Amino acid sequence: MRFRVDPLPRPGTYREVAVVVDVIRATTTAGVYLKEGARALVLAPSLEAARLLRAPGEVLAGEVGGLKPPGFDLGNSPREAKGVAGRVVVMATTNGTKAAHAARGAAHLLLGSLQNATATARLAAGLGEEVALVCAGKEGQVALDDLYAAGVIARGLLAQGFAPQGDMAHLALFLAENPPREVLLASEAARALKEVGLLADVEVSAQVDVHQVVPRF
Amino acid sequence: MRFRVDPLPRPGTYREVAVVVDVIRATTTAGVYLKEGARALVLAPSLEAARLLRAPGEVLAGEVGGLKPPGFDLGNSPREAKGVAGRVVVMATTNGTKAAHAARGAAHLLLGSLQNATATARLAAGLGEEVALVCAGKEGQVALDDLYAAGVIARGLLAQGFAPQGDMAHLALFLAENPPREVLLASEAARALKEVGLLADVEVSAQVDVHQVVPRF
Repeated sequence: MRFRVDPLPRPGTYREVAVVVDVIRATTTAGVYLKEGARALVLAPSLEAARLLRAPGEVLAGEVGGLKPPGFDLGNSPREAKGVAGRVVVMATTNGTKAAHAARGAAHLLLGSLQNATATARLAAGLGEEVALVCAGKEGQVALDDLYAAGVIARGLLAQGFAPQGDMAHLALFLAENPPREVLLASEAARALKEVGLLADVEVSAQVDVHQVVPRF
Repeated sequence: MRFRVDPLPRPGTYREVAVVVDVIRATTTAGVYLKEGARALVLAPSLEAARLLRAPGEVLAGEVGGLKPPGFDLGNSPREAKGVAGRVVVMATTNGTKAAHAARGAAHLLLGSLQNATATARLAAGLGEEVALVCAGKEGQVALDDLYAAGVIARGLLAQGFAPQGDMAHLALFLAENPPREVLLASEAARALKEVGLLADVEVSAQVDVHQVVPRF
């Protein structure tokens, strides 16, 4: 029983259990939508794709530069999940969706965040012997916030008897020794949200283990 | 005044001050050679190149699988610097040399380690407004030990009034909140040295601020 951490997705290398992490904000928000009663999530690779994929009665969620695009119902904020109960949510995300597609060869694909970190670790540990924590990153760059969240989930895997494999697994674990708010606030992702007045989304994304809902594909 | 941290070398992007870090063991050992009185260091990209570059009277240092190659004087161990005083040392390294060559466009090129971390930060801060900490990595893979040492040097730069730039600079700083021995021992580099009975080299490489000699090209 062991786990690795990929600072960026490595398409085609996932077999057993893959946990995609895009903590600011896609995988955090995905968990919130399910927790608030959404029936299912569809991850679309772009705004256009989301518009095309949305069937009548489904909720359309997405963002441009952090803000809700014209004609969308929701803006991918973890603080805003009105009207999702009982409905399918089509989420337009970029990094998170790319990472999920990269990991689709895995037998089990989960979406992890800080909000559901321990629940994610527990579920992943029950699904297989080899777990990959897949950081989405931002446009091909390694993201501090994703590596940190992977480290917090990794601590949960340690507690389940899983062993870290490789330098990046250890790196994430050492990073996770720091407090969540401080680390997330230092990230470029937080800086970008701050610029559009959405710093509160970072605060919410930094909450650890506030629910047990783990999106699963 | 700011600094960035490159988890792997980015050839052609270095202008002002570049600090190459290959803490297990090339840049640690390079510092020890100078501290023990070596007149100058030559970094060769391979054992063959080192043999060709060595002039009469010069010391030949290198390693294969962590061990001293046949015909070499020294094995690139920071615990072994006999006979270097007053002489030129030709060091065959792989990752450290590649990183140094990648950074040769910089106006000032230093070799940093934990042993000379604060001295490196002080010297770098005096040489320019923009400092890049360049982790050598291991065969193209990001190395935990190098990122950690970059983080410890980064703390020195913070103390000199430099600001971290980008997620990787913050990552290295957060990583550096952990104790050196624990982090270095968790690295693949340490595991490889342990396998050939050279774990003591990791202990020596984990010593922080034990001298003030900074190799400079």
